[in-house]
Amino acid sequence: MDTPSTQRSKATQPLVSIVMGSDSDLPKMEGCLDALHEFGIPFDIQVVSAHRTPQLAHEFASGAEGRGVRVIIAAAGGAAHLAGVMASLTVLPVIGMPIAAAPLQGIDALYSTVQMPPGVPVATVGVDASRNAGILAVQILATGEPALREKLKAFKIRMADGVREKSKKLQDKLSAK
Amino acid sequence: MDTPSTQRSKATQPLVSIVMGSDSDLPKMEGCLDALHEFGIPFDIQVVSAHRTPQLAHEFASGAEGRGVRVIIAAAGGAAHLAGVMASLTVLPVIGMPIAAAPLQGIDALYSTVQMPPGVPVATVGVDASRNAGILAVQILATGEPALREKLKAFKIRMADGVREKSKKLQDKLSAK
Amino acid sequence: MDTPSTQRSKATQPLVSIVMGSDSDLPKMEGCLDALHEFGIPFDIQVVSAHRTPQLAHEFASGAEGRGVRVIIAAAGGAAHLAGVMASLTVLPVIGMPIAAAPLQGIDALYSTVQMPPGVPVATVGVDASRNAGILAVQILATGEPALREKLKAFKIRMADGVREKSKKLQDKLSAK
Amino acid sequence: MDTPSTQRSKATQPLVSIVMGSDSDLPKMEGCLDALHEFGIPFDIQVVSAHRTPQLAHEFASGAEGRGVRVIIAAAGGAAHLAGVMASLTVLPVIGMPIAAAPLQGIDALYSTVQMPPGVPVATVGVDASRNAGILAVQILATGEPALREKLKAFKIRMADGVREKSKKLQDKLSAK
Amino acid sequence: MDTPSTQRSKATQPLVSIVMGSDSDLPKMEGCLDALHEFGIPFDIQVVSAHRTPQLAHEFASGAEGRGVRVIIAAAGGAAHLAGVMASLTVLPVIGMPIAAAPLQGIDALYSTVQMPPGVPVATVGVDASRNAGILAVQILATGEPALREKLKAFKIRMADGVREKSKKLQDKLSAK
Amino acid sequence: MDTPSTQRSKATQPLVSIVMGSDSDLPKMEGCLDALHEFGIPFDIQVVSAHRTPQLAHEFASGAEGRGVRVIIAAAGGAAHLAGVMASLTVLPVIGMPIAAAPLQGIDALYSTVQMPPGVPVATVGVDASRNAGILAVQILATGEPALREKLKAFKIRMADGVREKSKKLQDKLSAK
Amino acid sequence: MDTPSTQRSKATQPLVSIVMGSDSDLPKMEGCLDALHEFGIPFDIQVVSAHRTPQLAHEFASGAEGRGVRVIIAAAGGAAHLAGVMASLTVLPVIGMPIAAAPLQGIDALYSTVQMPPGVPVATVGVDASRNAGILAVQILATGEPALREKLKAFKIRMADGVREKSKKLQDKLSAK
Amino acid sequence: MDTPSTQRSKATQPLVSIVMGSDSDLPKMEGCLDALHEFGIPFDIQVVSAHRTPQLAHEFASGAEGRGVRVIIAAAGGAAHLAGVMASLTVLPVIGMPIAAAPLQGIDALYSTVQMPPGVPVATVGVDASRNAGILAVQILATGEPALREKLKAFKIRMADGVREKSKKLQDKLSAK
Repeated sequence: MDTPSTQRSKATQPLVSIVMGSDSDLPKMEGCLDALHEFGIPFDIQVVSAHRTPQLAHEFASGAEGRGVRVIIAAAGGAAHLAGVMASLTVLPVIGMPIAAAPLQGIDALYSTVQMPPGVPVATVGVDASRNAGILAVQILATGEPALREKLKAFKIRMADGVREKSKKLQDKLSAK
Repeated sequence: MDTPSTQRSKATQPLVSIVMGSDSDLPKMEGCLDALHEFGIPFDIQVVSAHRTPQLAHEFASGAEGRGVRVIIAAAGGAAHLAGVMASLTVLPVIGMPIAAAPLQGIDALYSTVQMPPGVPVATVGVDASRNAGILAVQILATGEPALREKLKAFKIRMADGVREKSKKLQDKLSAK
Repeated sequence: MDTPSTQRSKATQPLVSIVMGSDSDLPKMEGCLDALHEFGIPFDIQVVSAHRTPQLAHEFASGAEGRGVRVIIAAAGGAAHLAGVMASLTVLPVIGMPIAAAPLQGIDALYSTVQMPPGVPVATVGVDASRNAGILAVQILATGEPALREKLKAFKIRMADGVREKSKKLQDKLSAK
Repeated sequence: MDTPSTQRSKATQPLVSIVMGSDSDLPKMEGCLDALHEFGIPFDIQVVSAHRTPQLAHEFASGAEGRGVRVIIAAAGGAAHLAGVMASLTVLPVIGMPIAAAPLQGIDALYSTVQMPPGVPVATVGVDASRNAGILAVQILATGEPALREKLKAFKIRMADGVREKSKKLQDKLSAK
Repeated sequence: MDTPSTQRSKATQPLVSIVMGSDSDLPKMEGCLDALHEFGIPFDIQVVSAHRTPQLAHEFASGAEGRGVRVIIAAAGGAAHLAGVMASLTVLPVIGMPIAAAPLQGIDALYSTVQMPPGVPVATVGVDASRNAGILAVQILATGEPALREKLKAFKIRMADGVREKSKKLQDKLSAK
Repeated sequence: MDTPSTQRSKATQPLVSIVMGSDSDLPKMEGCLDALHEFGIPFDIQVVSAHRTPQLAHEFASGAEGRGVRVIIAAAGGAAHLAGVMASLTVLPVIGMPIAAAPLQGIDALYSTVQMPPGVPVATVGVDASRNAGILAVQILATGEPALREKLKAFKIRMADGVREKSKKLQDKLSAK
Repeated sequence: MDTPSTQRSKATQPLVSIVMGSDSDLPKMEGCLDALHEFGIPFDIQVVSAHRTPQLAHEFASGAEGRGVRVIIAAAGGAAHLAGVMASLTVLPVIGMPIAAAPLQGIDALYSTVQMPPGVPVATVGVDASRNAGILAVQILATGEPALREKLKAFKIRMADGVREKSKKLQDKLSAK
Repeated sequence: MDTPSTQRSKATQPLVSIVMGSDSDLPKMEGCLDALHEFGIPFDIQVVSAHRTPQLAHEFASGAEGRGVRVIIAAAGGAAHLAGVMASLTVLPVIGMPIAAAPLQGIDALYSTVQMPPGVPVATVGVDASRNAGILAVQILATGEPALREKLKAFKIRMADGVREKSKKLQDKLSAK
């Protein structure tokens, strides 16, 4: 059966494919890579430019499903068409991450990514919200895999515990004054 | 096995749950309902207000996974917190649809929906992009179900054919002048 | 009788409760803490995230009135839902302070905080306007306590005197050239 | 003792004073007037222009506390200085309601109202959010009056019940199809 | 020699190719069609969607130069990628016309069209500035054809005369009062 | 006769009065002070806050004409009401200079300054456009004084010469490569 | 002596010259024409386009001072360069009125008018603020003419009386209920 | 025949003329100069201010075609009228490059450049998109010159190869971990 858990046994086969418009965007993708690592999701990452390598973008998106990919994450700035190009050429869900860059600070990338025409959605996360791109990919894969949902629940609890702990430390510090 | 296709056999069990901040938003959701119908996805729809019925929102989101729901779609306007509240209480993917309303025309709803903190993503579609909210839900469910991906490919072909046909009609009309 | 002045005699009982979405926001809250200190208002401060600790946010807001709190101040950035979540769960006035953060510089937080639906107001102050959040809390408490209003009047006079003094120094400096 | 409940016995004495920049804004204030009526709060309403009647604005704000007023609500559009002028001349809490008007649709009024300098806050509600201006005034008065808080709790329950009822009607309508 | 004037002798061969994202955009293109007619520039027009017909967009752009086209005009709204897709696949100059549509009124289309990455420019005209898209195409063709520049100069004079005439009529009307 | 030239003979009597919302704005006013010095216009400068010293603002504006002042320049940031308060209390022309400050970068100040209601204009210059505030004041005074207009013409020529010279240097530098 | 009052005796000589980018803008200028009529200021009005009649704009601005004009009012929309072109060619004060037009609603015109470079100010009034353009022109002329200032004071009093009267009517209406 | 290739034989005759509003903008133009060098296009560059040297701007634009120039590139910030002024005075295509400057970060320049009235287009590239201004100029010249189009095709291939190479390096680096 073609579920994510079956696929994961083929160790090197990526379930998530990340594309960035430029290799200089790599530092902004750390949060995404970390999230996929944390949840043990195999992935690959490539530089693909919607505008400078349209042929590559075309091939990449058209072939993704056949390679076993289940979710595409596309990060780009400016007139950020990368996620949209992906979405036009595959039926896989495409997560779009707008990248902030001077001078418009990502508003241009946000609008270019989210305002897609009817029939071709992009699942847009916040500007530079790299970690959320990764977590959303995990959530999508988890819709067909209960074990992954349990991991996400544990993650949610850890996250909440982290906030409670910080709050406690803050109060200790303030009351110690 | 807990895959969407298994679940769909239980005819009345919704895989997608739609929440709107107000019943007056229903006309804006038509495109979403139509998309889910076209792909044969069972769904339910409710009015839940993050601010006026916080308890209901809490219960709804917390219980969704247990009811067999796999994707939540939340549509709201203004300080649109509904999708965010859902995302804070479930590990299911939450699709957020910002609703345009005077006077800020949905910019407020877009920012309130998409700019989520790390760890709690909302898969945001365009302002009032109801049809895309539905299609994205189908794409997410299809990650674990090859047959649904085939339906999406057929849909993409019909969509392209529709555009080509319109282009042909336009050219016939113009050349007939 | 349940007036603020009665409560203040119970030294440790906070009348104002401050919540921040992240402990990294603490430096931005200094102006608020200083203002409450200046007016002798007992308060407490906690880290509560609307999205990462929804249960904590729920408990915090629901229990505030019972703990003797009379005003809540909630500060958050991005899709800033914290003040709205508070307002949805208490009848106490909630002061919302949008926090500026790259890349949208607080416009997202401002819209997410101020554009609340009918019936659930948030008393919004300016972006990063921490001192004003504190002063507004004092003004609200002072509606039931004449002595506090007198303190506010004295504060207004000191503030005006400060401006006049600065103006005089400036003119002296310029005329000395 | 000078609490709101004491004052309310003097039937005609307003606790809330509403000022609008123009009499043409009256229809936009209906939600506010209704809210104050619902909670039995005595109020008055006047047309005061920060720019066309600066003397009147000055007198109005300076004298409000002495007249027994406890909260001021100021509604204005464009370069909306009315709430700010009030806040500069009284220690009472001032609720600012930005009014939307072509061509900038209230963004100008929102910024002019909320971005006050340190020491002079305006409690800003959403653009045209008249009902919320009224509810916030009630919440502020209720900080010193437990009975009013109970009324606000009942109001919150009615509001939630209204949403649940609408949701049920919607579901009945959809399932009847 | 391969100059526009040579090409024009082949009567049916278009020098300018117009693509629109949707056939519903046709009324907005009237100004463009009129301008090209006025200057006797052969053109064709098609509906091509960057997102719904990516293959068609690809073929169209790749083949344009070979068909004798010298300038492409692409008009689209929302996340307006059409002009960018064209520019990624041809070395011909691409004129991008952002189309205004609710709710973001063309700001999204403007940013999506103009903010292209280095190496892949789109010559962007104003939102809905259809006539200017046509005139710019003529100006570009005229860089290699002096006779067309003379026509443009005559057009500039007629335009100026039109304004002067309107000014005179206005003054006559006002002085007649 | 009460013309500016008459007044200038009274050496210490300012014709232009500059008010700033805060003494920290002084560095931003340098361009304004320099411009007034260049044209020999007597002026004074003070710190007046619309919100922290409303009484002072009131007295200042009401008395300006009587002190021989002919133009007021008001510079402020945020909810920049200073120019508007001046304009509400004097019939002298008021030049408003919006000051940029984080996080809204002066958009708030621009809207608060320029969007005045009918009957009470503020002559607004660009954000932080201090030099232009000064030049505009000179132009206004020059409407009644031909000699000052001649100085302005000489200034315009110097300004143009400066640009031409820079252009020449640039070309020399580039051609020297 | 070359003061406005001297000039006004030459009955037909305009002191204020109004230019609009298009004759379709005339209805928006009514408030300006009315204001100048009320104060008895002779003026003329013309259609001049910075972009379609650059030569005319050049001649108009260069010759204005010589024709006895003392203030220029320029109204334009979109990339509103008209006021800037005037200001580049005359030392007279130029009042710029941005005109709102779909789709950017005058934000484009506001920025194009107000953000002038150092040395070339435009006295900008609000978007579509035609009446304020007229009043500002009167205030500028009045800097050299005490009688006109007295008229402006009377106007300010009438304006304030109008607001007070409306406020009284409103209160009568509400108390009559 | 008057084609670009003929002209290029006259070695020093510029085909592209670049104007900047200020010599401080030179560093931002490097990408443009480099692009023109790469393609062997002769050009010149000058400082011309629409507002400080209107006469020079007039002469420059009016004479450009006569000097053999075929494309004008105009770069300016703020109320960026330079490209518009050029376009009003020549029939050559004018490429406008908005320059970002604090505080409005180029939004003012973008709107001032792109929103031109019907009949007078400016071919606008992205904010600070200097390289694209140059490439667009080459594309325009290439419409009449097949050899230049071949160079552009080679450039497109190099650009794509560069992206592919970066992608490979990135994958090598990540897999080496």
